[in-house]
Amino acid sequence: MATELPTSGWQLRSLVKSTGELELSLASVPLGDPGPDEVVVRLEASPINPSDLGLLLGAADVATLKASGAPEHPVVTAQVPPAFMRAMAGRADQSLPVGNEGGGVVVAAGSSAAARALLGRTVGVLGGAMYAQYRTLRASDCLALGDDVTPAQGASCFVNPLTALGMIGTMRLEGHKALVHTAAASNLGQMLVKACETDGVPLVNIVRSVEQEALLRSIGARYVCDSSKPGFMEDLTAALVATGATLGFDAIGGGRLAGQILTCMEAAANQTATTYSRYGSTTHKQVYIYGGLNTGPTEFNRGFGMAWGVGGWLLTPFLQKVGPAEGQKLRERVAAEIKTTFASHYSHVISLTEALDPVVIAAYNKKTTGEKYLIAPHK
Amino acid sequence: MATELPTSGWQLRSLVKSTGELELSLASVPLGDPGPDEVVVRLEASPINPSDLGLLLGAADVATLKASGAPEHPVVTAQVPPAFMRAMAGRADQSLPVGNEGGGVVVAAGSSAAARALLGRTVGVLGGAMYAQYRTLRASDCLALGDDVTPAQGASCFVNPLTALGMIGTMRLEGHKALVHTAAASNLGQMLVKACETDGVPLVNIVRSVEQEALLRSIGARYVCDSSKPGFMEDLTAALVATGATLGFDAIGGGRLAGQILTCMEAAANQTATTYSRYGSTTHKQVYIYGGLNTGPTEFNRGFGMAWGVGGWLLTPFLQKVGPAEGQKLRERVAAEIKTTFASHYSHVISLTEALDPVVIAAYNKKTTGEKYLIAPHK
Repeated sequence: MATELPTSGWQLRSLVKSTGELELSLASVPLGDPGPDEVVVRLEASPINPSDLGLLLGAADVATLKASGAPEHPVVTAQVPPAFMRAMAGRADQSLPVGNEGGGVVVAAGSSAAARALLGRTVGVLGGAMYAQYRTLRASDCLALGDDVTPAQGASCFVNPLTALGMIGTMRLEGHKALVHTAAASNLGQMLVKACETDGVPLVNIVRSVEQEALLRSIGARYVCDSSKPGFMEDLTAALVATGATLGFDAIGGGRLAGQILTCMEAAANQTATTYSRYGSTTHKQVYIYGGLNTGPTEFNRGFGMAWGVGGWLLTPFLQKVGPAEGQKLRERVAAEIKTTFASHYSHVISLTEALDPVVIAAYNKKTTGEKYLIAPHK
Repeated sequence: MATELPTSGWQLRSLVKSTGELELSLASVPLGDPGPDEVVVRLEASPINPSDLGLLLGAADVATLKASGAPEHPVVTAQVPPAFMRAMAGRADQSLPVGNEGGGVVVAAGSSAAARALLGRTVGVLGGAMYAQYRTLRASDCLALGDDVTPAQGASCFVNPLTALGMIGTMRLEGHKALVHTAAASNLGQMLVKACETDGVPLVNIVRSVEQEALLRSIGARYVCDSSKPGFMEDLTAALVATGATLGFDAIGGGRLAGQILTCMEAAANQTATTYSRYGSTTHKQVYIYGGLNTGPTEFNRGFGMAWGVGGWLLTPFLQKVGPAEGQKLRERVAAEIKTTFASHYSHVISLTEALDPVVIAAYNKKTTGEKYLIAPHK
């Protein structure tokens, strides 16, 4: 079935040794024939999302990165601070593949009709081990894209697009009517601006610079609050009054921002209150932390009454909650709008070898808004 | 209908002026005849709960308390720090009565059968304005107590007992199987130990001293962890493994304890995990903050995966969620067990006048575990 396929391909591996050392390397992985319901995808592009970095770098201190190995077979090591090794216990001494999603072309297919229908198609794929040249997976795990879509354009079909749609879906499930988003100039943030525009959902965007504000306004964002400005809390409160947003999604995690959002939501709720309630507004105010751009502690003053929540949020439990039929509808929407609403922008395209360069690692680990890395495994 | 009733009674009032001054005083309030469905309760005892102090002291700085007025008509003032005045805007310049609950005797009743049935009965009452000599309220708002129960024994029928039962009820509603409680040697904490014992609910008690640990063990608590000990995190994790508790109720609020509980819950969940999950355990871990014994900021490191939540918790929304029939069942249980499971202990009994003494205010505002104040309005 497979024609002209190599017998193996390179795959990036992350290993945290129980001695406290992280080791990244490239492994040569044999490539077998696909099973009846499977396809082999030649991966052309895979993004480095913040959600990949935890598995890739395993809490290692990037200041200690050291390259070794041959130029064609690089190995890079770093130290994991002892305090983080407890959290690494579950993965210690296992060589793990990395990369949540990617885009490629189906180059071999099993005997089933569903698998054969994908042969030659450009697909977006999800499922781990995508920092690799080839990936064998079930036909049902592929999202077939239009003929005018390149593998690079289809590399980020899942994590960011479905997260944006998951935020809107969570808002509806939990009875809110508008959203707040932080680090809002990110690729994900830009998708959310466009998806909310299409769906008529008011969105308050929180950014950290005038450049980010200008970027979001240029794509049509209406409410943009710059947390680096002195009038930030007043601006945010006014936007919350205007939109009625009582649900926020925070990519920052550390620091005081999540609490500031709740404080401003409470101030907004009290602007319309007519009587004093000693426990604050009865409006439930929620912030979900879905990222950790600031890895420091989360801190808040609880000056927002008693009807509030802060919690973790992940895409997978959301998709489990809404069920497979709704999940499929969301994926089909992404495929249809992958060049518009859900278009991603990459500032750097790197090879698997470059992905193991200490200087490059330090750069993509910064997670700078506006800087996004795409791995091209055959580069 | 009313026989030998005075025409007025004293009522404690709290006023936050928009100038930033708190003023506490006693007001003489006229006492009218009850409506058909109403009764007049001669209040004999009303507890000072932490939940009363916010309304009573309105964020004032107790270090600035100053007494004035005549000895029989004391007035006490204090300054509210400007930073807190925004939160006081809703109550500014309104003279508010205080006191959530109390115990007393029905001394007058309206014409309805329900009201008349209460005449002469000792009742527990909820509804505010209980730091007063008399209170007129609906018969349906009274919890009739046994003939062997004194008004002082019935003074705390609602806030603490229903909160303890609300914690157990929330645990069941949200699918957890055991509980964690902080400041667990409090009156409420002791009730929770007894109620959980009766209901077969495993309970992990967190205390801050060896004395508190000894107190809880003396009433039968099985899992007690002392946060002042160096091995606290290990002790807590072991208790969480033993009980499977994934829901905590935290009276402290400020500081790192809520986050430590989540961290230990995650460690407990991972002790039974067989494979590594980069996002941490999929077990949802929840801590509800229901008090603010530490008024400082809440701080946590998010070292507990993504399946977690921290939020505010209040009794009233819980009661609304379970509905009036279930609420009535809970109240009847409290009445039946008011001298056993739900017995309260008071270290000080003070008059309304003493409640306005700056030295006494500073003492009850400390909310020291083991120190609890009861106001006797006719003392």
